[in-house]
Amino acid sequence: MNPIAEMVQGPVGWLRNQGPEGDRILSTRIRLARNVVGTRFCGRAIDAELAALGDQIEHSSLLLPEFAEGSAVQISKLPILDRQFLLERHLISHDLTAEVGSRGLVWARDESRSVMINEEDHVRIQVLMPGFQVETAYAAAREVDEKLRVNLPFAYDESLGYLTACPTNVGTGLRASVLIHLPALVLTQRIKKILKGVTQVGLTVRGFYGEGTEVMGNFFQVSNQVTLGETEAETLKKLDRVVRQILDWEKKAENTLLSDAELQIEDKILRALGTLKYSRLLGSGEVIGLLSAARFGSTLGMKNVPPVPVLNDVLLRCQPAHLQRLAGREMVAEERNAFRAEWIQKNLGVSDVPRREV
Amino acid sequence: MNPIAEMVQGPVGWLRNQGPEGDRILSTRIRLARNVVGTRFCGRAIDAELAALGDQIEHSSLLLPEFAEGSAVQISKLPILDRQFLLERHLISHDLTAEVGSRGLVWARDESRSVMINEEDHVRIQVLMPGFQVETAYAAAREVDEKLRVNLPFAYDESLGYLTACPTNVGTGLRASVLIHLPALVLTQRIKKILKGVTQVGLTVRGFYGEGTEVMGNFFQVSNQVTLGETEAETLKKLDRVVRQILDWEKKAENTLLSDAELQIEDKILRALGTLKYSRLLGSGEVIGLLSAARFGSTLGMKNVPPVPVLNDVLLRCQPAHLQRLAGREMVAEERNAFRAEWIQKNLGVSDVPRREV
Repeated sequence: MNPIAEMVQGPVGWLRNQGPEGDRILSTRIRLARNVVGTRFCGRAIDAELAALGDQIEHSSLLLPEFAEGSAVQISKLPILDRQFLLERHLISHDLTAEVGSRGLVWARDESRSVMINEEDHVRIQVLMPGFQVETAYAAAREVDEKLRVNLPFAYDESLGYLTACPTNVGTGLRASVLIHLPALVLTQRIKKILKGVTQVGLTVRGFYGEGTEVMGNFFQVSNQVTLGETEAETLKKLDRVVRQILDWEKKAENTLLSDAELQIEDKILRALGTLKYSRLLGSGEVIGLLSAARFGSTLGMKNVPPVPVLNDVLLRCQPAHLQRLAGREMVAEERNAFRAEWIQKNLGVSDVPRREV
Repeated sequence: MNPIAEMVQGPVGWLRNQGPEGDRILSTRIRLARNVVGTRFCGRAIDAELAALGDQIEHSSLLLPEFAEGSAVQISKLPILDRQFLLERHLISHDLTAEVGSRGLVWARDESRSVMINEEDHVRIQVLMPGFQVETAYAAAREVDEKLRVNLPFAYDESLGYLTACPTNVGTGLRASVLIHLPALVLTQRIKKILKGVTQVGLTVRGFYGEGTEVMGNFFQVSNQVTLGETEAETLKKLDRVVRQILDWEKKAENTLLSDAELQIEDKILRALGTLKYSRLLGSGEVIGLLSAARFGSTLGMKNVPPVPVLNDVLLRCQPAHLQRLAGREMVAEERNAFRAEWIQKNLGVSDVPRREV
């Protein structure tokens, strides 16, 4: 079976459980950027060089126990829909969907570990874990890193650290991010001030799909900015500390909302749930907002709200390429929106949605 | 038991069944204005005169088989909440809720027949029937009229007809109205032109609560304008003909919508249904729009939509005075909106609405 066809059917392996602080934190992501000595950076190399190195990286990766039941593809050989699917799955970058030549991906069956090959850097090791587990995710990434370097000599400078194509990654080559859901801070309008503070301590905040994307559904991606002049341990510790602080503020804002405007908040959440369960057409942007509201209801302890793991799964799998891949065909927006509504209602266990008798 | 307390509990008797064309026509109403010879019009009489006549009208009415299990009240002795309740029930006029002195109401147990006493005219006979049945409703009103005149000499002029306090009612004293639901003509934006045509043939169109009230939920009250120079039969025939024409246009507009925008229409209806079933706070204006959409779904043959008699009952009984009378206390708007949402969900048979565990 085509590995992507298999992914289309089932839930996302690493996202099956909620993880620590899973009510408010969707996922933790670690990325390590590495380049291999003896081959020019991807932007400078000719494709023959990249092809040779790509084969070597793919082969080395597939030897690791992490990728024992894993898969490998060459991105440029994939249909565009499959590339968009991998992007929505957070396994490849937006840039990679458009690239030609020897660009590849190796990933574990549960998608918790992956290696992007010849994107901006020769090697990008990625670990995805549910909830808030910066240390654990980093340890897993480091393990892949240690094992890969046995066969692949990574470019490392004693004073600078790891050498990368873009200067912003030189040093640790580490990007650690946490995808956090902050509806209470948004509703109490405290979010702007808090994000400003986060930026001032050297972290960055991005939208749902990473760099340069819009914030949707009150999901914020908080990650380190600095890779040079601090150790991995320092980077992780700072991120951990700041995220715990944000979580505290979010919980306080929840309490404020519940004591000042409980009915209004419940009403907002329930209406979103009603729309999710009943509408006939659901747009990809709108649905993120609705799922965000439902998630907030679950966090606040409302009964009969779909559990967070179900909401996480639906959030990821109701994206455009996912739905088209599932339907087995390209669909225009309206057709997709109808398919999405039906798919979501099936996955939320709704069985009594009225339909016209034909 | 206080007759109003009894009405608060159960469904509205005359509205239990849908009646002819009940998908698109909520109700038919006939009103006959009469005055009694020997007593001055209400606006000119002193209260002692009205009190004496009022007793006589009440007594005469209660003798009729139509009111055998009926009730009678003196409006000014009722608490304001009960007066608003009777107004919402379409049994008294807005003016009557504020009047002092000897103003009364006699009504049959199922509320299909009633007599307003000393409102603008001494006697206002009213018949309410479900669906579209102008002839039947008129015959029922006429029967009350014939029986009452045995004891009450109604002022009648050979050339003018019945004499009434306001010149606009002189002649037949008849107001025949049909409350019609026209969502398809509203959505296809044909309604304005049609209402203009209706006005040109001597009929009037009013909102949900009668004269001078706003159109809500796509409900239009179509009634005769003219009472002088045409017979009752002519008035009824014209109303019947015009309403049948409007019904035809509405059905054509429904077909247009279903062939041009079926998904969008279904989506609109289902979202309204989701909001009805899930929200925690429902305003009195908003709910009419939502029930209108649900009703449209039922008309279009959607499965699992609450049946029209349930929607009719909910529409009438979710009004502010109804809810407060049911709760047994006055409530501020937010409290009312929470009570309304819960009451509607109970009546629509929704049992799985998420709530916070306390």
